[in-house]
Amino acid sequence: MSKETGNEPFEEMRRLLFSSVIADALDACGYRDQILRHDIRPLYPDAVVVGRALTVLSVDVYEIPEEPYKLELEAVDALKPGDVLVAQTNGTTRSSLWGELLSTAAEVRGARGAVIDGFTRDTQAICAMGFPVFVRGIAPYDSKGRSDVIAYDVPIECGGVKVCPGDLVFGDYDGVVAIPRAAEEQVLKAAFEKAAGEKEVKEALENGMSATAAFQKYGIL
Amino acid sequence: MSKETGNEPFEEMRRLLFSSVIADALDACGYRDQILRHDIRPLYPDAVVVGRALTVLSVDVYEIPEEPYKLELEAVDALKPGDVLVAQTNGTTRSSLWGELLSTAAEVRGARGAVIDGFTRDTQAICAMGFPVFVRGIAPYDSKGRSDVIAYDVPIECGGVKVCPGDLVFGDYDGVVAIPRAAEEQVLKAAFEKAAGEKEVKEALENGMSATAAFQKYGIL
Amino acid sequence: MSKETGNEPFEEMRRLLFSSVIADALDACGYRDQILRHDIRPLYPDAVVVGRALTVLSVDVYEIPEEPYKLELEAVDALKPGDVLVAQTNGTTRSSLWGELLSTAAEVRGARGAVIDGFTRDTQAICAMGFPVFVRGIAPYDSKGRSDVIAYDVPIECGGVKVCPGDLVFGDYDGVVAIPRAAEEQVLKAAFEKAAGEKEVKEALENGMSATAAFQKYGIL
Amino acid sequence: MSKETGNEPFEEMRRLLFSSVIADALDACGYRDQILRHDIRPLYPDAVVVGRALTVLSVDVYEIPEEPYKLELEAVDALKPGDVLVAQTNGTTRSSLWGELLSTAAEVRGARGAVIDGFTRDTQAICAMGFPVFVRGIAPYDSKGRSDVIAYDVPIECGGVKVCPGDLVFGDYDGVVAIPRAAEEQVLKAAFEKAAGEKEVKEALENGMSATAAFQKYGIL
Amino acid sequence: MSKETGNEPFEEMRRLLFSSVIADALDACGYRDQILRHDIRPLYPDAVVVGRALTVLSVDVYEIPEEPYKLELEAVDALKPGDVLVAQTNGTTRSSLWGELLSTAAEVRGARGAVIDGFTRDTQAICAMGFPVFVRGIAPYDSKGRSDVIAYDVPIECGGVKVCPGDLVFGDYDGVVAIPRAAEEQVLKAAFEKAAGEKEVKEALENGMSATAAFQKYGIL
Amino acid sequence: MSKETGNEPFEEMRRLLFSSVIADALDACGYRDQILRHDIRPLYPDAVVVGRALTVLSVDVYEIPEEPYKLELEAVDALKPGDVLVAQTNGTTRSSLWGELLSTAAEVRGARGAVIDGFTRDTQAICAMGFPVFVRGIAPYDSKGRSDVIAYDVPIECGGVKVCPGDLVFGDYDGVVAIPRAAEEQVLKAAFEKAAGEKEVKEALENGMSATAAFQKYGIL
Repeated sequence: MSKETGNEPFEEMRRLLFSSVIADALDACGYRDQILRHDIRPLYPDAVVVGRALTVLSVDVYEIPEEPYKLELEAVDALKPGDVLVAQTNGTTRSSLWGELLSTAAEVRGARGAVIDGFTRDTQAICAMGFPVFVRGIAPYDSKGRSDVIAYDVPIECGGVKVCPGDLVFGDYDGVVAIPRAAEEQVLKAAFEKAAGEKEVKEALENGMSATAAFQKYGIL
Repeated sequence: MSKETGNEPFEEMRRLLFSSVIADALDACGYRDQILRHDIRPLYPDAVVVGRALTVLSVDVYEIPEEPYKLELEAVDALKPGDVLVAQTNGTTRSSLWGELLSTAAEVRGARGAVIDGFTRDTQAICAMGFPVFVRGIAPYDSKGRSDVIAYDVPIECGGVKVCPGDLVFGDYDGVVAIPRAAEEQVLKAAFEKAAGEKEVKEALENGMSATAAFQKYGIL
Repeated sequence: MSKETGNEPFEEMRRLLFSSVIADALDACGYRDQILRHDIRPLYPDAVVVGRALTVLSVDVYEIPEEPYKLELEAVDALKPGDVLVAQTNGTTRSSLWGELLSTAAEVRGARGAVIDGFTRDTQAICAMGFPVFVRGIAPYDSKGRSDVIAYDVPIECGGVKVCPGDLVFGDYDGVVAIPRAAEEQVLKAAFEKAAGEKEVKEALENGMSATAAFQKYGIL
Repeated sequence: MSKETGNEPFEEMRRLLFSSVIADALDACGYRDQILRHDIRPLYPDAVVVGRALTVLSVDVYEIPEEPYKLELEAVDALKPGDVLVAQTNGTTRSSLWGELLSTAAEVRGARGAVIDGFTRDTQAICAMGFPVFVRGIAPYDSKGRSDVIAYDVPIECGGVKVCPGDLVFGDYDGVVAIPRAAEEQVLKAAFEKAAGEKEVKEALENGMSATAAFQKYGIL
Repeated sequence: MSKETGNEPFEEMRRLLFSSVIADALDACGYRDQILRHDIRPLYPDAVVVGRALTVLSVDVYEIPEEPYKLELEAVDALKPGDVLVAQTNGTTRSSLWGELLSTAAEVRGARGAVIDGFTRDTQAICAMGFPVFVRGIAPYDSKGRSDVIAYDVPIECGGVKVCPGDLVFGDYDGVVAIPRAAEEQVLKAAFEKAAGEKEVKEALENGMSATAAFQKYGIL
Repeated sequence: MSKETGNEPFEEMRRLLFSSVIADALDACGYRDQILRHDIRPLYPDAVVVGRALTVLSVDVYEIPEEPYKLELEAVDALKPGDVLVAQTNGTTRSSLWGELLSTAAEVRGARGAVIDGFTRDTQAICAMGFPVFVRGIAPYDSKGRSDVIAYDVPIECGGVKVCPGDLVFGDYDGVVAIPRAAEEQVLKAAFEKAAGEKEVKEALENGMSATAAFQKYGIL
């Protein structure tokens, strides 16, 4: 579903874009609800994630399943270069979906990070790996008998935003945005343009131009 | 409304005081509700803000205004040396009032920081500038068509505390306090005194005095 | 109630264990609800606490008591080497139980840290001391006339988990676990074993083994 | 913007439809997010509201405006037969937008009810009038100096759903739905059909048909 | 501390006033924060409570006290005609402070109701008695070993408002207000006047006067 | 798993017991955490449910399943006389698990009610049937494409309490308790005894005995 080709814009996006400028581009293209809920945060300030979503749906359970971790492991093994694991955990605070071993397996497969509407553990180890993981919280609980993955590579919501398999996601310290497939080309074009413009405005402001005058001249804030 | 004179105690406050010792001085003077709600946090641990409030009132809107950002830009352009922009956003989680360009414009005008009962974006860039910003959260959303400033230089509440234009505010890693004009002189005097006393107690405790004995001797905790 | 002997496993635990591996060991031994609520967080990422609980029960009050701080100071003075102060504050957001001076007094007595279901202040100073404190939040308010300790060395709940005087607690960046006395030996044995096993799995994953195959071979995640 | 004609389907809707059957019809037509947040509740169990939205946007303020209540009174005076006042109050819990006198003025003008993403007061009196009001809460506080209406007859969100002037709204004990103008005809047609079908299913179930068989036969739940 | 004399205005207040008109009178006299948090609700719609506060402070505990219920029973036995028991429970959701037997004991002593920043049980029985009880929630848990009264007849906060022994409290379906002693005479006078004026406005509105014109003429909303 | 015999104590329980007296009996037998979270409320004040749990586990989904409602319908069709459907919905606020048609099917099969850690719709119709349903909220949304039942007749948690198939549940206006199988006989015996004792205490209090004296004499509160 999600595969990296020589043409994927991931490195250029990482170098030149920010979540806020992509958010502005999405706004300009009429997609005004594409930012994941603000409490999904990176584990470390410099974490940047960009890639295509491999989606995971996890739910709370109250006994240990016959084959614990089965679909979760399948999902991780299905990750391909350029993928980002994007998971919905039905809002659980009872356990962590993610951890160091899964980060290791994901990184080896070329995955570029994980965005979890839920919790992780082994946080220090993941930070030490430099693997960009975005989560709603941290807790030492294992998921066995607490949560279970019931599907992957299906449409989900993550942080209140619909994410389909293969959708482009971008996250940095400000937050995470999901770019719908249909809007991808148009949004990226607008984002690269706005990113260039912002530098000019910043210089004008540093040189003492009033904020009012700068906005009138450049139309950017 | 707020202006810096040679007599403003900002540098001395920054060097010798902490939010907690000012809170104790406010308590001692009978002002027991002057600390902004604890979820207004600095963007980086060393951020310290001290100055006089230029207040801003922003509200949620659901269409793009005729003149977007108008009063917000006016407020930023009205900042003077020694000012701190203090904003109420009616608790919105739908957009960010603040960002890198506004921080740049504010800093050029001599503003000493911003305290926002709301969200910011461009967080890493603001940290790199060393401009002290205190917020309730972070999100990449622009405010256009989501929030709009309807007034500035008016009384507001920020983090549950009444803040009037020109009130002295002080924030560090423990939190933000607002000092009412009428109490300013008395509170600062008490705070400088208590700050001096605490060092003595700390030394006594380090030398093994019991906490009970130290409190009996110094009356400070 | 809590005392350190030459046989206490604190240093070995700190060197070889993590909260997540202890949580797994607790699970394996049938103790599935021993992790404190996830919003009790360390003040700095490297903070690790391990020791035996000296419990404190603090409640909200609305006037200044006749003898402010009385039982709180007694509790701090009762700390012995190897102790961890574990406090319940009845969920208050109105004041901070803990601060720099109490950290100083506690450290001098050999205490190994504090776990507070509540708030602290003087956060930067405590970080500078390297004294591991875990809290639910930060605020500059003093507790005098806002909260009062009504008992110590009694059973409490902290972060939703029952903690009895002398119980072993362990906290790191992932969270805090409390190990019931009756299960201590069994849990530690299981934790040391699992910690050893995880390294092997990590290596296998780094060498490209699939997550599914690794779990089938090692039975660890 | 909103006017009642002889063709308005209000009485037929009130007699034959329910919020749940309209919600199902909206689902069937592809509008899956048209139900206001579930904490907007009627003041009394039999309250049913149906009509076209006259929208109101209220925000928190912190001083008494020059002309208190000005736009709020204008909005109420602008109500026409068949209108429902639909208000967004930016989530305030600090005051009540609505009350007995405004209900009286609204009813005299032919308004059919009010849906407030906020609070009311004079609750018992409004219930005695039989004027259907849906709110998020109840509190005795007047809005003067606490909230102020800054616009009406503009697009708003109410309970998380976009509502435009003139949109059809329907509320009963289950909740409130807003029907977008473009979908109105199609949705009402589907709703009247489904309402008729449900009675047949209910009879079949009462006669002992299994739920599985009933759903297979009628395709309705 | 609280005693009823022949001059107490309780019956006149119950007959002629409402919480909202008292709230307006408090506003007019400059007391703008005297309404208990809106989630403190009456057990039945017609419940009206008016009287003087006998305050109770309850806190969470985690073992059964030596003398369970001791101060709670003392407080109930200390109730005098015209008293209202006003309790703070430190926000607990773990048990109910109040119930049928305590309502019975309170009513026999002439108490006029109870306002609990916490929970009750035996709700149906209390409703059947017609004893007006206002609470934040309902739960069947007994307080023994969960909560304990540590003081009564002391200043407390209830629903975020300071309440001192003997303060006048008034509650109806809109909510509960506490009138500070110093403002009592002035507030009641203003409330009785406004209550009379509101009827005139209602009649004018019923006769078709616009809301704008009515407010201009009467200055009341 | 759950079946009614001539010996089931349901009618005697309904006539003589209350949730609060069962809660006290559970406490007395050492089961102190058997009350479902307090926000699970009956749809109407007189609703009483007593019977054995048929458990249901529902989770959020984000596309319409191949066979919508499949396991939910199976679960309802599996209900037997004396059963109570007890459902966990993973805390969703996005849709209603329950409604009028399912209530009809359940009642026809002899089920005695439903306890849903989630939402219902068709509330007025269910009340008119007199079928006792306990829920956390009300919303008109259908579950198709929003939630899906993934298992039934398995251990779940409902309102934070573990409920196993066949466990006895009792709910009234104060709340819902779940009685573990192992404790059933002992708890019911203690509950019937305490219910008898409470009447005597109530009479003593009505005759003017102080609360303190009554507790000393009867040991009941």
